[in-house]
Amino acid sequence: MDTGSEHQLRELVGERVAAVRTKNPEPLAARHAEDVVTFDVLPPLLRRGPGPIVEKTQQWFDGYASDIGYQVEELEVRADQNLGFCSFVYNVKGTLTTGDAVDMWVRATLCCLKVDGDWRIVHDHESVPFDPQTGMAVIDRGPPP
Amino acid sequence: MDTGSEHQLRELVGERVAAVRTKNPEPLAARHAEDVVTFDVLPPLLRRGPGPIVEKTQQWFDGYASDIGYQVEELEVRADQNLGFCSFVYNVKGTLTTGDAVDMWVRATLCCLKVDGDWRIVHDHESVPFDPQTGMAVIDRGPPP
Repeated sequence: MDTGSEHQLRELVGERVAAVRTKNPEPLAARHAEDVVTFDVLPPLLRRGPGPIVEKTQQWFDGYASDIGYQVEELEVRADQNLGFCSFVYNVKGTLTTGDAVDMWVRATLCCLKVDGDWRIVHDHESVPFDPQTGMAVIDRGPPP
Repeated sequence: MDTGSEHQLRELVGERVAAVRTKNPEPLAARHAEDVVTFDVLPPLLRRGPGPIVEKTQQWFDGYASDIGYQVEELEVRADQNLGFCSFVYNVKGTLTTGDAVDMWVRATLCCLKVDGDWRIVHDHESVPFDPQTGMAVIDRGPPP
């Protein structure tokens, strides 16, 4: 393990938190590798390449009338000098422009490579579990105590 | 990148495929680290430690009257000497003891460390996306062409 790399990956997660709280999509987009493979909370099953991240993230931000609360918990980071991964859960909170309240828990895994001295996300997996009895996504349950 | 390690992680994924096809839970359980963090398809949001994997997996196998088809696609592996990750999607197919047919697509990310010469899964994230219009898990859509 490389503690310097692990520190840098914690900073990468911190950047994401700051980007959501300030509703600035640019830092989020800047970290994705050209060949990133994304397993997103919403369909499709899989996406290759970053796609229109800035536009999609801006659209997400624009859906909120309020600030967006974005709280990271259970962060785990492991890294060598040039390769590393982070896992965490995050709570998104706020009020949509429709008036609906959001209070949602999501799991995230970021797999990263160091490219030309900078960490890039080559794989981004974000999801919620689902209830097999109802087939419904379970979005309101935080981590067990 | 370390091609030897990447080859070993591809073998680890191959082991899982063989374990499901032969309905043998032991090889699946043997790979998990003591401190594995799991984000599973079903709740809870997060689990620490392997828990009763053998029993749970056996229960899953026992739910099938037929063989279990388990097809891995879109496999990506990146690894250094002691740390690596795999991402893939898999299709599970079969007939349950209830008579219901299963034909489901799941995304999987395995983050691994080499411990005493053996690869161990320290983080396992498996999920399906959900449809934001209905709140339902989307389990029947494969990777886009």
